[in-house]
Amino acid sequence: MTHLADTPRALQHLLTLEHLPRIQLIDLLDRAQHFADGHDDRQALAGTAICTLFFEPSTRTRLSFQLAAQRLGADVLNFDVSTSSTRKGETARDTLKTIEAMGVRGFIVRHQDDGAVAALAEAANPGTALVNAGDGRSAHPTQGLLDMLTLRQAKGDDFSRLKVLIVGDVLHSRVARSDLHALRALGTGEIRVCGPQTLLPDDATLDGCSVGHDLDAALDGVDAVMMLRLQRERMDDGLIASLDDYHRDYGLTAARLGRAAADAVVLHPGPINRGIEITDEVADGPQSLVLRQVGNGVAARMAVLEALLSGNR
Amino acid sequence: MTHLADTPRALQHLLTLEHLPRIQLIDLLDRAQHFADGHDDRQALAGTAICTLFFEPSTRTRLSFQLAAQRLGADVLNFDVSTSSTRKGETARDTLKTIEAMGVRGFIVRHQDDGAVAALAEAANPGTALVNAGDGRSAHPTQGLLDMLTLRQAKGDDFSRLKVLIVGDVLHSRVARSDLHALRALGTGEIRVCGPQTLLPDDATLDGCSVGHDLDAALDGVDAVMMLRLQRERMDDGLIASLDDYHRDYGLTAARLGRAAADAVVLHPGPINRGIEITDEVADGPQSLVLRQVGNGVAARMAVLEALLSGNR
Amino acid sequence: MTHLADTPRALQHLLTLEHLPRIQLIDLLDRAQHFADGHDDRQALAGTAICTLFFEPSTRTRLSFQLAAQRLGADVLNFDVSTSSTRKGETARDTLKTIEAMGVRGFIVRHQDDGAVAALAEAANPGTALVNAGDGRSAHPTQGLLDMLTLRQAKGDDFSRLKVLIVGDVLHSRVARSDLHALRALGTGEIRVCGPQTLLPDDATLDGCSVGHDLDAALDGVDAVMMLRLQRERMDDGLIASLDDYHRDYGLTAARLGRAAADAVVLHPGPINRGIEITDEVADGPQSLVLRQVGNGVAARMAVLEALLSGNR
Repeated sequence: MTHLADTPRALQHLLTLEHLPRIQLIDLLDRAQHFADGHDDRQALAGTAICTLFFEPSTRTRLSFQLAAQRLGADVLNFDVSTSSTRKGETARDTLKTIEAMGVRGFIVRHQDDGAVAALAEAANPGTALVNAGDGRSAHPTQGLLDMLTLRQAKGDDFSRLKVLIVGDVLHSRVARSDLHALRALGTGEIRVCGPQTLLPDDATLDGCSVGHDLDAALDGVDAVMMLRLQRERMDDGLIASLDDYHRDYGLTAARLGRAAADAVVLHPGPINRGIEITDEVADGPQSLVLRQVGNGVAARMAVLEALLSGNR
Repeated sequence: MTHLADTPRALQHLLTLEHLPRIQLIDLLDRAQHFADGHDDRQALAGTAICTLFFEPSTRTRLSFQLAAQRLGADVLNFDVSTSSTRKGETARDTLKTIEAMGVRGFIVRHQDDGAVAALAEAANPGTALVNAGDGRSAHPTQGLLDMLTLRQAKGDDFSRLKVLIVGDVLHSRVARSDLHALRALGTGEIRVCGPQTLLPDDATLDGCSVGHDLDAALDGVDAVMMLRLQRERMDDGLIASLDDYHRDYGLTAARLGRAAADAVVLHPGPINRGIEITDEVADGPQSLVLRQVGNGVAARMAVLEALLSGNR
Repeated sequence: MTHLADTPRALQHLLTLEHLPRIQLIDLLDRAQHFADGHDDRQALAGTAICTLFFEPSTRTRLSFQLAAQRLGADVLNFDVSTSSTRKGETARDTLKTIEAMGVRGFIVRHQDDGAVAALAEAANPGTALVNAGDGRSAHPTQGLLDMLTLRQAKGDDFSRLKVLIVGDVLHSRVARSDLHALRALGTGEIRVCGPQTLLPDDATLDGCSVGHDLDAALDGVDAVMMLRLQRERMDDGLIASLDDYHRDYGLTAARLGRAAADAVVLHPGPINRGIEITDEVADGPQSLVLRQVGNGVAARMAVLEALLSGNR
């Protein structure tokens, strides 16, 4: 499921950032920066039909991809499978093959199951491109890209000099996994991970990371803090004691942020649970890059769609 | 919250018609007439992204804005907040700021709470424009504009010669409030208001109007009748005795319409409750401008979007 | 309701293929083939607004029309009436007239009631075109067109040499009715129909067809098998004993298909109930044209929209 990304210059799909060659990652980031600088290219995908195919709903991510596709001149269609009545008795694969047969060349796919997007990619024709917009807890590669773009804008090209801290529910987070893939590929100097024991994975996900459960200690001297969104249902799962407890132990406050480097930046994939994983003061403060991440999301997705679908690939 | 509209030539948002300078109102109407005459300008907003952000659903108004934006060449996105799953835990302000950060410059916002759109406008960046597509019972300025455009087409520029009657549930109607703002700004000769006591406001809303509860008397000699839509839930609220009673006392029939001037025109913002506030004979009759209002709605919204978002402002 | 189609060169709407002159059917198929060959014409409907108006939901058909309209350069709007809150108290006719008054010239209408689309067409202005995207069990003319296009690509122009078999729930199927209309108009050599007695109509629908209940016998030597989708709710209706029984008696298996001509082709309108009306082996086998039908659907709809809405008609 990752071999598709192993050969430079031949990306058919973007399923994960894991094992993506560093040079391809840099190429995508460079191109994303070009788009982030305000350049559009309405001819790039003129006449190309792209369909969002969301088996798990997400308005925010859908809008971001839709804007990216429009700025490249593509025709965008939306198929919200989660609310559609047409899938009665139809497999996900048949849904994909049907829309593909209508002439759609690009698919933005989100699915609740790990590996589901890769499985669909196996069924696609050679001329069809799939972008994984999030599958299970596995990967959300365009989020990883936009986070790296945001870090690079703030901290420069050389990731080997950076100490980056990821905080929160890494266990269930596809954002964290894609960030970790990208941070490693870019040779980040030190990657720290902090969260309650119940919300950290005990497999190879955290290989090479400094892992801890004390946020104050983990923040010490870091250049960037990547906060994760807390899914409130984790409390019902018994994985955290209470939202108050979580905030007390893992909420990012201005006081805590003071332990990081003076010019440290704060990222969060949104939507924010204000007062839980992050305070208003931090979310809206000068070190927060939350809204810049959102803008970079459109640029990163333009770079991906162009790479996969324009005639130049 | 209305000061934004106080300075001619510097409209950032359109939140209300209250206190809108008469010259700006006339400018918008003139431009709307231009578009109503069938002119498109696909270059005006080419490359500009506009998002409908409806916290209260309305397909009809959304379609009208969408058509207006398309005829100006804009890219249109829809975000139906009322059915979205993404707003879990996210404030309306964060939703707006997030979509704004994606590069969207124009927002068409409907909200069930009075003042909610103005509050969002306070949070917007200087380059962002909000159009109030209806907030609570406060304002629905583009409806006011399209009603004035329709009246002007039928009755000419000089509103000082006109007797205009508004009938129905003024208390809960943002349409009535925006119509009243505009009718006053245009110097309407006489404004009458008629409805059951329980559905008329007792504040400054009706200042300067002739208020009555007898529809036959109120219709006498008027040049235009602006019917309001009856929300059926008003019956559950106990504000009207029954739909039959309402129709008997305040329904516009052909016989009643005979009391108005011979060339009187009838307006209704739609959707119509046939047989309740208006009979088929009147709704589909020669004096009805209901469908012309709908067409003028697109033209009026084109004028507003152009004024707020095109480079010429 | 069919007289609109009686005069060649003057199609205002496409409501049914019944009584459509053969020459007009051939014209539409020729033009559809042109679009199926990959030609777009982004100028054909530039500036023309088209609205999908679905009183019964269908994502698949809506997407197909949407892609067709985009490839002709039209502006497409979607109005999913089944989930809209705006229709409270509004008649279907008022909904149509309202959107028409906004400047929309083409409507793609699906409705659960027989004749409902034709009734709406009676209410439309002379410059407005309706395409029936399925009404009740009466007609689904663009499906009929795309099926004929698919058959013609596989078997050539001369339908008089063909034996075509329709299998399944003809009683409730608008697809079957439109296919029968078109097969007759094209002079098909032999039309066979096979299904359980409870799912076959006993009116004029099957006039001129060879009707049987034994699928093995019916398949003997046919050139094309047109499978119908089984609505699972037919079991609750008591019209079939069980899905297993239905599959045993009327499911198309590879063994059964062997009774047809060696180069016989298999069609199905989708979505497929795999293992019920058709096995995976047949659906995905070399004789299946299911995905080609889907692609032809876009082309056929382009031909229809162009014929009804472009300046050349």
